Order: sequence, then C-alpha cells, then structure tokens
Amino acid sequence: VIARVRIDGVAASTVPAADRGLAYGDGLFETLRVLAGRAPLWSLHMDRLAEGCRRLGMPAPDPQVLGDDVAAVCEGLDDAVVRLTWTRGVGPRGYAPPQPATGMRMVAAAPMPALDVVGVAQGIELFECATRLAIQPALAGIKHLNRLEQVLARHEWHDARYAEGLLCDMHGHPVCATAANLFAVIDGELLTPAVDRCGVAGVARRLVLGWFGDARQVELDRPTLDTADEVFLTSSIRGMLPVRAIGARRWQVGPIVRACQTRWRDLGMPWPVILEST
Amino acid sequence: VIARVRIDGVAASTVPAADRGLAYGDGLFETLRVLAGRAPLWSLHMDRLAEGCRRLGMPAPDPQVLGDDVAAVCEGLDDAVVRLTWTRGVGPRGYAPPQPATGMRMVAAAPMPALDVVGVAQGIELFECATRLAIQPALAGIKHLNRLEQVLARHEWHDARYAEGLLCDMHGHPVCATAANLFAVIDGELLTPAVDRCGVAGVARRLVLGWFGDARQVELDRPTLDTADEVFLTSSIRGMLPVRAIGARRWQVGPIVRACQTRWRDLGMPWPVILEST
Repeated sequence: VIARVRIDGVAASTVPAADRGLAYGDGLFETLRVLAGRAPLWSLHMDRLAEGCRRLGMPAPDPQVLGDDVAAVCEGLDDAVVRLTWTRGVGPRGYAPPQPATGMRMVAAAPMPALDVVGVAQGIELFECATRLAIQPALAGIKHLNRLEQVLARHEWHDARYAEGLLCDMHGHPVCATAANLFAVIDGELLTPAVDRCGVAGVARRLVLGWFGDARQVELDRPTLDTADEVFLTSSIRGMLPVRAIGARRWQVGPIVRACQTRWRDLGMPWPVILEST
Repeated sequence: VIARVRIDGVAASTVPAADRGLAYGDGLFETLRVLAGRAPLWSLHMDRLAEGCRRLGMPAPDPQVLGDDVAAVCEGLDDAVVRLTWTRGVGPRGYAPPQPATGMRMVAAAPMPALDVVGVAQGIELFECATRLAIQPALAGIKHLNRLEQVLARHEWHDARYAEGLLCDMHGHPVCATAANLFAVIDGELLTPAVDRCGVAGVARRLVLGWFGDARQVELDRPTLDTADEVFLTSSIRGMLPVRAIGARRWQVGPIVRACQTRWRDLGMPWPVILEST
C-alpha cells in the first residue's frame, strides 16, 4: 500500500493537535496536477508558496524536499491532484508566532477526478454568490488557509447545474469563482480582475497572463462583465473552462478560451477527446 | 497522567489530516477559564459557539458532551485555560461542506499563566498595529478559525513593553485588541466598538454590556479614542485590563474599569492581591 499522505516527510494520517494551521488557519496551501510524477506547473506553485511565506513572515519550505514528498505520494498514479499544505507548525497558545517557527508540511495525493467534458467543450453555468469577498490587501493574492469566505460561498448552492460560483468583492465587483480565476474579453481586450485587494493569484491565471502579454488586470464592475464577448475561468486543476451562462446572460464559447485550452493541452495536461472534434 | 487534550471525547494528541479546520479554517473556537472544574462564563461561551455554528451552517456540538470533555481535561487543575475547537470535521477535497458534516471537537487544557499583576493594577500600554481588519459582516462577531489578521497584527511587535495591540478596521476605526475587546468612557458614556462588520463579540465584552445597561456599541474614530477619560480591554482569560497608554496619550486607571474588576472578581475569578490595596 502506497501512503497517499506524508506529514513532514513521513507517511501519516494525522497532524499535531497544536498545529497553528488548525488553530488559526496560520499557513498556506497549493493544489496541483501531477502527471506520472511530473508537475508541469511546479515552479509557478513554488513561486506563489514562497511569496506567501514572505507575506506571512514564515520560513519557506525547501522545494526539493516538497518535491520528494510529492513523488512519494503520487507513486503509481498517472494523473493525480496533490495538495501541499505548509503551516507555521506547532506553537504555544496565543496569536504571537513562535520564533523561530518550525513549520509543518503535509502532502496529500488523490487520483484526478473525471473532468467535466461537457463543461470544457460547451461551457459551464455560474451561480451568482451573495457572499462577498472582504477587502484585505495584507492577505490578497496568496493562497492562505483562511478560506471561510469560499466555504460560505460554495455552501450557497447545491444544484449540480452550476459548476462554479461567481464571487464579487464588497463593492459588488466580480473577482473570481470559488476555486478558479475569472477572465473576460471586453472590447477586444483580455481582462482579469486584479487580486491585490482580495482573491487569489492563481497559477493558471498567471499562465494566461504570460500567454497574452497585453492582457490587463483591472477592477471590473458587474454590468461590464455582461458586455463581455467571452468569459472563462482558469484553474490549475480543471484547466480552462468557458462560461456559457451567468444569470440570464448567455455566451458562446469564444476563440480566446479555445486558444487557452490548446496551450493547456500543449503543457501535457490530459484533456477530453471531445475537444479535438470541436 | 491526566490527558490534557481530548479529541471527540478521547485522549489524543493529533487530529485527522483531512479535517476542514486545518484545510480551510472551517470551524470555531472558544477560550475560557475553568476554576476547579467550574467555568463561570460557560453559558455565554456556549451561546456564542451556537451562534457561530448557525452562521457557518454547521451542526452545533452538545454543550453537555463538551462539558464532560472540559471536566476530564481539567482534572486536578485549580485554574485552567481551556480551548474548545469545533470544526466541520473531515471532508473531501473542495470548499463544498460535506452534508451532513460530522464535526470534530477538540478540548485542550493548560494551567492558567500568571496574570500581569502590574498591568491589572496600573494599566497596560498598547502597540498601534498597522494591520487592518477587513470589513466582512458574514464573519464578524463569531470566533471562527480564520485568524491570520490577528496573527499578522500580533507579529508586528516584540517589545514586552506592549501587553496588547490596538487593531483598527480598514477605515482606521479602532475595533479591538488582538485578543481582547475595547471599551472607552467618552463624555460620560461607556462605549465599545460595534462588531457587526469585523471583530469578535467577546464573552467578557458581553458581560460588561450587561453590567452597564446604557453602554453603547458604536463606530469610533481614532481621534475620538484619544478624548476618552478611560480606556480598557476585556478578555475572558485576562479579565479587565486598564489601558494606560496608546502612543503619546496616557491615562490614569478610571472608576469604570475598577468597577468591572470588582464585578469580575465577584464571579469567582482569581485576581491579583495587589488590587485589594489600590
């Protein structure tokens, strides 16, 4: 039996009760695809993790050591979803971070679930979440463990018709989905909401920004989103997902998201066969 | 050896790696004094915990069962600090809460540390934190596990001269300390910042609001705080703490906080002898 969870490098299924990740959400995580032992976006995930450590004033884990853990938990899996969790580790009671912090790393693998083939091909419908994202520049962009806003937002709908939910900030401006970033093509420009006040700087988002050098990070208002010619989501797990409906507004799958899907596949990401025939 | 940590009613020192409290901070906690097996503010803590469960859409734990856990971990301690943690429990990957959630309860006791006798008698100095609290009505008031703002704020100072830090919201309005609530006497009125947009509705805060029926919950601005005749903090662990300095502004210990200290002692809370002679 291959252990699919390693904690501080050892096969384990539990973490210390006094870990600050549990006590305060004092830590970070990354979720990534691993294909036959290879993580195509590894360096982007490691960059974001390092940036998160810097922002939270935590020591950073050694990417080489994390990589060894990933290889171990993914053994025998062709296509895995891996979650890396890095917390400040065990500490005494109270908010003051221990100095120095020991850190705790958890690496867990699971087989990649089946992709939503119809969604990838024809687009998905978004639920409009009432939960708003708070404006907090100190925590924006990084993938920290304080995720109650996302939990509350995802709790709002149970209808399988909605593959994701649209999340707006406190001012009602669209920012992202519950677990994906948002892009829109408006007046011929590729736009994505800025993530310096809330939201997460997704790894797949960064890829798309790299592919389209003239894409812009903007503050978007809700009515403007409806004027888009194309809307899509990006996720390091689910890839590039066209949006076909938000409320009464419907979209066709557009050329930019199709180009992103082709680029995504070119990274070696397994992709539904249906795409080849569209 | 008495186990000072119980998890789901069993002596244990670890929690499941897949617990949502660790994954997303998806849960709540309470920190309380337990004096020879008796928790003077038990019902207030249980009220807040139940309210938190309602707000997060989680099942609520049975207070009787929690009470049994508390009694077990506190055996042989005259004066203990107990932390109750209640999470949504283990769940599959993803933000969607499992339905139904199983919940996970952790109860941990430690001997009460020595009180800051000088601080109780003469007042404490507050550090002015640069970290701002985000405005998030969906999470305000409850004591949830998403505490990175408090961790970052508490990380700002290391000088033992400051016993606590003043936390303001995004608009620069004083709200609380990192782990205590804030009161001020201004123009003869007892005021405390409202906690419906950020901050925690502290149990000791609720006590004080009950003692002074005409106390008001308000939006306070920073310059107005300096006009106060008296400023003090409230904490269910540390009790009633006069503030003697914030920045250049100095205060004498005032009559309202002294009255609160007397009431606190009357609840049976151990209290420094020095107070008796002031």
